[in-house]
Amino acid sequence: MKQKYWDDFKVGDKVMTRAVTITETHIVNWASLTGDWYPLHVDEEYSKTTQFGGRIAHGPLTFGLAIGLMGTADPNPFGDSVVAWLGLDKLRALAPVRIGDTIHVEAEVVNKREAKRKDRGITIYKYVIKNQRDEEVMEFESSFMMHRRQ
Amino acid sequence: MKQKYWDDFKVGDKVMTRAVTITETHIVNWASLTGDWYPLHVDEEYSKTTQFGGRIAHGPLTFGLAIGLMGTADPNPFGDSVVAWLGLDKLRALAPVRIGDTIHVEAEVVNKREAKRKDRGITIYKYVIKNQRDEEVMEFESSFMMHRRQ
Amino acid sequence: MKQKYWDDFKVGDKVMTRAVTITETHIVNWASLTGDWYPLHVDEEYSKTTQFGGRIAHGPLTFGLAIGLMGTADPNPFGDSVVAWLGLDKLRALAPVRIGDTIHVEAEVVNKREAKRKDRGITIYKYVIKNQRDEEVMEFESSFMMHRRQ
Amino acid sequence: MKQKYWDDFKVGDKVMTRAVTITETHIVNWASLTGDWYPLHVDEEYSKTTQFGGRIAHGPLTFGLAIGLMGTADPNPFGDSVVAWLGLDKLRALAPVRIGDTIHVEAEVVNKREAKRKDRGITIYKYVIKNQRDEEVMEFESSFMMHRRQ
Amino acid sequence: MKQKYWDDFKVGDKVMTRAVTITETHIVNWASLTGDWYPLHVDEEYSKTTQFGGRIAHGPLTFGLAIGLMGTADPNPFGDSVVAWLGLDKLRALAPVRIGDTIHVEAEVVNKREAKRKDRGITIYKYVIKNQRDEEVMEFESSFMMHRRQ
Amino acid sequence: MKQKYWDDFKVGDKVMTRAVTITETHIVNWASLTGDWYPLHVDEEYSKTTQFGGRIAHGPLTFGLAIGLMGTADPNPFGDSVVAWLGLDKLRALAPVRIGDTIHVEAEVVNKREAKRKDRGITIYKYVIKNQRDEEVMEFESSFMMHRRQ
Repeated sequence: MKQKYWDDFKVGDKVMTRAVTITETHIVNWASLTGDWYPLHVDEEYSKTTQFGGRIAHGPLTFGLAIGLMGTADPNPFGDSVVAWLGLDKLRALAPVRIGDTIHVEAEVVNKREAKRKDRGITIYKYVIKNQRDEEVMEFESSFMMHRRQ
Repeated sequence: MKQKYWDDFKVGDKVMTRAVTITETHIVNWASLTGDWYPLHVDEEYSKTTQFGGRIAHGPLTFGLAIGLMGTADPNPFGDSVVAWLGLDKLRALAPVRIGDTIHVEAEVVNKREAKRKDRGITIYKYVIKNQRDEEVMEFESSFMMHRRQ
Repeated sequence: MKQKYWDDFKVGDKVMTRAVTITETHIVNWASLTGDWYPLHVDEEYSKTTQFGGRIAHGPLTFGLAIGLMGTADPNPFGDSVVAWLGLDKLRALAPVRIGDTIHVEAEVVNKREAKRKDRGITIYKYVIKNQRDEEVMEFESSFMMHRRQ
Repeated sequence: MKQKYWDDFKVGDKVMTRAVTITETHIVNWASLTGDWYPLHVDEEYSKTTQFGGRIAHGPLTFGLAIGLMGTADPNPFGDSVVAWLGLDKLRALAPVRIGDTIHVEAEVVNKREAKRKDRGITIYKYVIKNQRDEEVMEFESSFMMHRRQ
Repeated sequence: MKQKYWDDFKVGDKVMTRAVTITETHIVNWASLTGDWYPLHVDEEYSKTTQFGGRIAHGPLTFGLAIGLMGTADPNPFGDSVVAWLGLDKLRALAPVRIGDTIHVEAEVVNKREAKRKDRGITIYKYVIKNQRDEEVMEFESSFMMHRRQ
Repeated sequence: MKQKYWDDFKVGDKVMTRAVTITETHIVNWASLTGDWYPLHVDEEYSKTTQFGGRIAHGPLTFGLAIGLMGTADPNPFGDSVVAWLGLDKLRALAPVRIGDTIHVEAEVVNKREAKRKDRGITIYKYVIKNQRDEEVMEFESSFMMHRRQ
């Protein structure tokens, strides 16, 4: 893992990840792991009667995959810089993700600031998740506590 | 599933969920499904050298389980009211969740407002996730588009 | 979890659960977890030559999902009443469950009796599992040891 | 797969399977796949307060594994004889299965009879599931529709 | 498990396993467990542009399933003879395995020799994996350290 | 994904991957997905009686994880260079991997040659897998068909 520090991140730094096709398996495995069996995701008969016309991916699944995709971008944007994940702001589900859609993440550093401890800093990435038609399906801002050079 | 509408939710409504013990299995299965193999979650040797002293649960795993736990509360707070998940605000990871910790959710309606469409409304729950020592490990606000009576 | 006792159950009490669509993923994951790779469930070429014309869900998978669906009914029929699962009688696989079928459970208390211990009672639910065409695909009787008021 | 017919089974035929150690992973994966998150299986804090003193395996998990273990016995008791699983009778959960217990199945043909169709017959196996201390933890009778020689 | 020794294996012994249909679920679960998200396996949009015209199974998944299939052949070719898996030679991926293909293994003992310890011997199986059109999709030689009669 | 060609690889190029801790979950999930329930991996009682003193990871699991770890090295050694995985040679299981061991891969290009097609080339990596005590637990050579500049 590449040694990397808060000092190495700049507002405007951009990352483009690989893509993954969302399958029925992802949805069933997500419902399984989290216990979220809301019918819109696991009951095709019900889902056909909704505005979506069929089962869609859980929004939090799209979020979870986005976090994973960032960590396998090449080169890895984080290296070993991250001390802890601080949280999330302004997550918006913008469009449904359907079985067979292929999503990737385009992220950008939108903010960075010093932390209380001198050996730490905070970096905020904005994630935009797009499907194979280049439509934005989700966006959020994710904050990371990072190691800082001394 | 119980018929329920936006009109049935009131600011101050409270939900207390069941609890689940976070196991090594949850962490490995989460890393598997999302692709997030950050060493703090999957490399015990590395994790022992961090401030946490060992592997901790991915923050987004805690979030995902919180969403799932709410959907299995008794009675189910949502019934069939939810049209779509709109998003998330102010998610904060407050304390690490370790293997063996047992978490549950305490949620409360903190906001509701009309939507553009007359047959829809928006309800915002604040989730607070606590461990077996009643320590807050995460909190966030989650927004739902709901059906509205006409 | 709602406090509930054996005393609160009455013969004739009915429960209707949510539904879940059985996918190829459920079948593969079931074969994986239990080790039951009988060709009728995992070998499409073989299954095409049988009377079923293709892979069908393992009967025990349908049973397992029925147990799970009951636990997420709204309101939860059991609350915290169950001390232990005693067993099962008269389970009958009545019709094949195919990939894409959507099943739910309709259950009814068919028997209850005192247990040896004064603080316990036994309640028997009959489960009927139906698909999206309202055909019965399985039925069984499930016995639970429950806490009793004192 | 060995060609085998109903005619080849005799009352008194015995099968002894391999064994498998029940792990926390089996319990979490079972809860995941079936949606059965009853606290006795997934909430260690609650389970410690029960007569069991900790989480125990879901009874249906023990049953599911028993079905799988029979299918990998050597030689395979069924070969390609099974047309369909008919059902189950007299399943009794006799003792808790705890994390770390190792279970195997001892089965015996206890009944066989002709079916309505001349090319079919019914065979009933009694399964007894034992742990590493040779204690019976579950038993049931399982009925199979089989091909019959002509 | 049948008692079996190195002495019981002969060059030329043949094994034919059951078959399994490779599903999208296998591919997603493999990517999940091993972390191998190479786009040819998980990104349908990218895969459509390759010579394969769509996602194909990971070669190592085909290998892993071949190992598993051998262990459930009837009768089990190994019994309890295996002390340890020594390794692999000459593995060749010969043709792509696509979603929906059904594969089985035909194996043959191609070599056996004494080990240094008098109570051990080495047996080498050549595995040939074929699909439902009887095309060879993979082959390899696998070496096992076995118990030897004394 | 970084554009990369066969021409960019040189004999002697080295890669060091991240590490992952092998858990009971990995072993159970591997047994599940591949169907390899050999008792040395899933039966603790049996395994205690062997020279290993307890369950060990399946050798092919170590191999599968090694493949996955290489694909998440930083920078990614392959980029989008790989057309197809050709196969494997000289895989040797050198030492057992136990629950709790943490493994990583050190790989090196040991051979490259032109392919028949002018727009393709073959690259061979030697993988050495080490545990947290820097002991070699497995090694193999893996061959890749790659795109070549024109």
